[in-house]
This record gives sequence, structure tokens and C-alpha cells, in this order.
Amino acid sequence: MSDRITAKYWIETPFPVAMAAEVMAGEQSSGTFTRLASETDELRAAHGARVERIVELDEVAQPSLPIRPLPAEMRTARFRRAEVTLSWPIANMGASLPNLLATVAGNLFELREFSGLRLLDLTLPATFAAAYRGPQFGIAGTRELVGVARGPLIGTIIKPSVGLSPTQTADLVRELVEAGIDFIKDDELQANGPHNPLAERVAAVMRVINEHAERTGKKAMYAFNITGEIDEMRRHHDTVVAAGGTCVMATLNAVGLPGIAALRRYSEVPIHGHRAGWGLFSRSPHIGIDYVAWQKLWRLAGVDHLHVNGLRNKFSEPDDSVIASARACQTPMFAAPAPECTVMPVFSSAQSAEQAADTYAALGNADLIYCCGGGIVAHPGGVAGGVASLRQAWEAAEQGIPLEQHAETHTELAQAIRAFRK
Amino acid sequence: MSDRITAKYWIETPFPVAMAAEVMAGEQSSGTFTRLASETDELRAAHGARVERIVELDEVAQPSLPIRPLPAEMRTARFRRAEVTLSWPIANMGASLPNLLATVAGNLFELREFSGLRLLDLTLPATFAAAYRGPQFGIAGTRELVGVARGPLIGTIIKPSVGLSPTQTADLVRELVEAGIDFIKDDELQANGPHNPLAERVAAVMRVINEHAERTGKKAMYAFNITGEIDEMRRHHDTVVAAGGTCVMATLNAVGLPGIAALRRYSEVPIHGHRAGWGLFSRSPHIGIDYVAWQKLWRLAGVDHLHVNGLRNKFSEPDDSVIASARACQTPMFAAPAPECTVMPVFSSAQSAEQAADTYAALGNADLIYCCGGGIVAHPGGVAGGVASLRQAWEAAEQGIPLEQHAETHTELAQAIRAFRK
Repeated sequence: MSDRITAKYWIETPFPVAMAAEVMAGEQSSGTFTRLASETDELRAAHGARVERIVELDEVAQPSLPIRPLPAEMRTARFRRAEVTLSWPIANMGASLPNLLATVAGNLFELREFSGLRLLDLTLPATFAAAYRGPQFGIAGTRELVGVARGPLIGTIIKPSVGLSPTQTADLVRELVEAGIDFIKDDELQANGPHNPLAERVAAVMRVINEHAERTGKKAMYAFNITGEIDEMRRHHDTVVAAGGTCVMATLNAVGLPGIAALRRYSEVPIHGHRAGWGLFSRSPHIGIDYVAWQKLWRLAGVDHLHVNGLRNKFSEPDDSVIASARACQTPMFAAPAPECTVMPVFSSAQSAEQAADTYAALGNADLIYCCGGGIVAHPGGVAGGVASLRQAWEAAEQGIPLEQHAETHTELAQAIRAFRK
Repeated sequence: MSDRITAKYWIETPFPVAMAAEVMAGEQSSGTFTRLASETDELRAAHGARVERIVELDEVAQPSLPIRPLPAEMRTARFRRAEVTLSWPIANMGASLPNLLATVAGNLFELREFSGLRLLDLTLPATFAAAYRGPQFGIAGTRELVGVARGPLIGTIIKPSVGLSPTQTADLVRELVEAGIDFIKDDELQANGPHNPLAERVAAVMRVINEHAERTGKKAMYAFNITGEIDEMRRHHDTVVAAGGTCVMATLNAVGLPGIAALRRYSEVPIHGHRAGWGLFSRSPHIGIDYVAWQKLWRLAGVDHLHVNGLRNKFSEPDDSVIASARACQTPMFAAPAPECTVMPVFSSAQSAEQAADTYAALGNADLIYCCGGGIVAHPGGVAGGVASLRQAWEAAEQGIPLEQHAETHTELAQAIRAFRK
């Protein structure tokens, strides 16, 4: 296995693509804007980034991002697009996620030679897997904790997003666990605010979940949002675990890679990774980081679940992008004997029985968490009807039975179709 | 003082601006995509985000970012731009930087109602200053440690960025400190790679700096790049301090807010904040975070120095943006008795004697670190000549003397102008 890191980029530049690629390689390794005598050939051979591959794409007449005025002889230049793959020796930064990020997604976004630059993908040597270990529970460990051997985990998000008291949250949780739900999560806006302190919420919610588990043998997984300072997250993790909780949640972009890695080394339960802020990386086609590259960083850092949005969601993301993200989460990062680091994709945002078949068909499996809001709480048969309808929709999906046909013999599914189909 | 957080955004939307602003407010507080019965009026009054102000701007015919197909009746819609100010009660998230970020820069970037959305500015209640404390050293503390009471700290960055051994680094540092330099920093690509482990670099470099300080009384500040995992940063901080070092550096976007806040609570020396990856937030005019908002988060978390690029830099950033960033760093965040949280802006990227006057004129003070590369190491009079020429350029700037006139009586400045003026 190579000891080099490779990163693939989409670029747009008015300069010859090969030259622009060399600028990227230089800026992100031994080079600076003029070659110094101390940047010897030996040093460059040992530490310089290498341009591994260039695939030229289309050209456009106008720069996609604002760019400095070009010199007179370039005023008629067209803006060339290409995929460029660079590689670095791991000797430069070691198996360190934050320093990897500073290298593959650092100053190069600002370079004047580019009117567009996106990081598309990363390939890392197995020394990263040895240094970080990746998800502790992943798909199998999560299934085991919830006691759901197959099919998706049917889940929901506590709503209103913010504003409920611990007792009101626990009341809602009671309804949900009595309905047989597998998974519940805090909203990313609800962590440890003064109106609903985490410790009080954990106590109130886990009382309900534990009582239900003792009575029925079924223990729902609740992802408590412990996003916060490093020591605070550890303290809150302990609160969750001491109360019998089986999952903690963190907003990844808000916590940072070292924060998540510290939590992973400490945690006794799965880490549910929320991607709030993701639009900043994804909304522009011309600057940012693709989910395929982004999710690898967090999987290595140690999350067990990763949000991927959902089909026909309420946001701006197209369906093919959602499926590509979910597939990425389930694709091994390393070849054996290194760990695969696969994680459970979390589907959410306007999900209901209606998207089950398409989601299953596109992904080819049900190793996922399927979070629904209205489809559960607004079901005509109540929350239990909502949960049942979703399980029925997924049974139909996995067995290849058309939804309407399955609904003929499954009341809750029929009710859901009547209530929610637009 | 208000206990509400306010955030100002630039938006672009095909919908009526007031409606779009309500969508933002709902998504980032108690709302979801349909109003639930449990989102009572009381809950909304206590926890809903409020639209404080809308300033309508221009309109464009095409969406700036890709957006879902609009319904038929909106096919001829124009895309309206506006500045929208929202506010939240601190009861929602408490004085927590990561949860603030998840609120003001979370899911809203993905909303389908927008073809552009940038966070421009933030105003925070003083409870944040109490929770975080901000920079420990700031401008005055940094000046005291280096023994430079006025004028800029003249600095440089170790180049090649990556690839030198600890001994080679120390050899370079010897030349620099003998030339009377104030400040030296590691490149953001050089942290703790196997070819130049931090502990060995600290030992080699600090031997040189300490010897020079004992002999001359002048101790240069070296910002050692300790970017890494949480425990690793603490360990490396201790290594730096034990060796007599006076500064640690971290790449902010790679470490995350809780990582920097943890370092701040632990650190005995100033934290030098590098902004590698900043282009991701700034390159698109249509998605991202303005420096004015971004730098407030890191100042609160506790950095003492913040990179702002430099005039006529090698990157894509225009000069007025650089100056606005530097001014932001020096603008108090809170009214007394809360701390101002002002930090020292760091100018770098193709800086030389040529930009001193314009930088001073635009900023109105010299409370900054001025990092030069070629202007120091490629000076005809050697490194000492380079450092002297920069001090002379800044003397001229502060005294309002034209550079050429000052050069008539200052040899090193005259040499610099002859050597570097294009």
C-alpha cells in the first residue's frame, strides 16, 4: 500500500491546466511564490506534492468565481475546467486529520490562479486507520444496541427543534417508545441551552426509555446532542451513559475533527454525526468539498452515523447527491486488514412511507436510519400508526412489492398513503 | 444589554423577502417545515428566532447558486437580494460557541428557498465574554513578550513550507534572530510530521533563540505549529513552554472552536491563529461567512493573533477586504466592563517594504505582525538588511515620510527598493 495521500480536485483556471496544477502542488507543499535556494531538488523529491493525473473537461468564457484582472495578453483567455489529482508523502504531516485538512483543503482555495476549486475525493494510507480506528460501533454495533437485526432503524427528531422543557421532551418520548420506535434524536439546535439543560433532559428521557425497556425488552436509542466544549462533551457523555443512554450526537462542523476524535477515544456509545452547516461546503458548484471527501474525515475521526439528507427533501439537494452520499458512507475506506470504517447513513428531511421504495432501490440495502417527522406524529392512527406504516413501507420495499399493493393488506400503510400523498 | 444574539445575512431568493426571512427564522429555531401543534404561541414567543430588520437590495434575473425548479407560476420570478437580521434568545443555546455556530450557520445554508446566503456579522451578549474570556495576551501582551513597544512586529515564515529538518530550521532561525527579527512562525503545512517532529524542532529552535536572548536581551517570538489532536496540542504546548517558547500556533478551521477554546484554557502563551481553508468561506460572493463574523468566533475562543492576508497579496483577495479584516480584529466586541477581545492582525503573503505606508494609512496604526519572506531573505544586505529595511519602511510610514525620501538616508531601505520594486 502506498504511503502517499492523494486528493482529487475539480478546478477552473484561465491558465494552462498543467501549470495551474503545479501551482496547487507547490503552494500545498514545499513551494512558495518564488523558488528559494533552500528548496533543493532533494527536498522537493522527498516532500513536494506530485501532480498524479489531469483530466481536462470543458471550458467556459467567464470565470465562475471572482478573480483578479488578468494581464492584457490573457484578456481573451477561456476558463478551463479539469480534474486534477495530487499526492503528498505522509512524511509531510503524519497521520493527523487536522494537518491533513490544512494540506488538502488549506490555502489553495484562495489561490489567484483559480476561478473555481473543489476537493472531490481523498485516498489515505492505512496508517490513518491505525492512528484513528474509525467508528466504534458502525452499522452492526448500532443494530445490536437497538435490537434491530434487519431493515432500517425507524427514527424521528424531537420537534419543535428547540423550546420544549425536559419534561415535555420526555412526554413526547413516551409516546414514541410506546409506538415501538427504534431511534430518536435531539434537534441540532437543542444541546444544553438554559431552558432544557442536557442533564435534566437525559434524566427525564432515560427514565421513560428505561421503564419501557424493562417492561417490553425494547430499548430505543436516543441520540442526545452533546455538542459543546471538549470537557463538557465528556461530562455529558458520562451523564448519558450513567443514565443508560446508548448514543450521543455531535454537530461535526461545530465541534471540529480533533473534538470528534477526542470524543471517539472516550465514548462508550455510538456517535451520531450531524452535518449542520454542510451547505457551506456543497451549495456552490465552484468552491467547497464534496461529501465523498468530507465524510471520510469524520468516519476516520470516529462517528458511527452520518446525516445524508433524504430523497425529495425540503432542502436544495438533488436526489442523486443524497444517494451518492449514502453509498459513500457504506463504502469501505481501507482494504483488509485495516478497518472498513463504514458508517450508518441517516436519512431525514420530509421523509415518509413514500420514499422507502426509491431509497431501497437506489441504495440496495436497508442499513440506514430513517428519520421521519410528520409521517409519524401526524399519522391518522397516531404515532404507533405512523411507525407501523413506515415498517410496512420498508417491508414492501425490501420484498419488491408495490406500495399500493402492500397497503391493501396493511391498514397503517393505507392510512399513511391516504393522509400524506400529495 | 440585550440577552439576544443577532446575526446579519445577505440573501438571494425568488420568494418575497419577508417570507424567506421567516423561513430562515423558523428553520433555525422552533419551526419545522410544517407547523406542529406543539409549537405553541408561548413556545414561539420564548424561543422563536425573530426577524429584526430587512434591507432590500438589488434583483437579478438568474439564481446565483443552483436552485430547485420553481413552480410554474414563479418561472418568471426575479431573484431578490436583501440584508436580513435575525435574533435568537440566548436561552436556546446558552453561551456556547459550537451551538451558536450550529444555529447561525447551520442548516439554513441548504434551504431550498435561497439561491444565495452569506452570514455577514454577529452580535453577542456579554454572557459569551464571561463564558469564554477571549484572548489571553492580545496586542499588549504580545508586545510585552517580544519587547516591542511600538511599530509592527517584523516577522517571517519558515520556508520551504515543509521539508526542512529540525536542525535546518534552527540554522535558519539563527540567521533570523541575529538579524534582529521579532517574530517567526512555522508554515501551516509544518506541524508534527515524521520528518520534523515538533519536540525536536522546539529543542533545536529554542536553543538558538534562548542563547541569542541571553546574549542580547532580545527574545524573538516563535509560533510553533501545534495543530493536532486535543491531548497532543496540550502536550506540545507544554514542550514549547518548557523550552522557553512564547507562542503556539494552530490552524483554526482544522482544529475547531472547542479545540481552540480548550487550548486557550490551558495555554500559558499567546495562540497564533492561522486561517488556512478560509477561501472556502470567502471565495463565493453567494455562500459562506464574512470575515467580520468568522473572526469574532475565534477571538472569543481565545486566539491572540489572526491572519488577514496582506495588501497586494499573492492570493485572490482584494485590498479593501484585507483592511476590513484587520480593522475587525482591532474592533472591540463588547462594551466595558466586558473584555474587548481585540487581537493582533497578521499581515502576510508577498509583503515587503512597499506595502508598509499603504497598510499604515489604511489601518491607522501599527498594532500588527508584518510577515515577509523574500523581502527579508532575498535582501541584498542579507537577512539583517531585510529586517532593517522593513523597520525603516514602517518608520517612514508612521512618520508620514515618503518611502523614497526616507531611503535617501537609510541604506537598507534603498537597497530593498532597488532590489524588489517591480
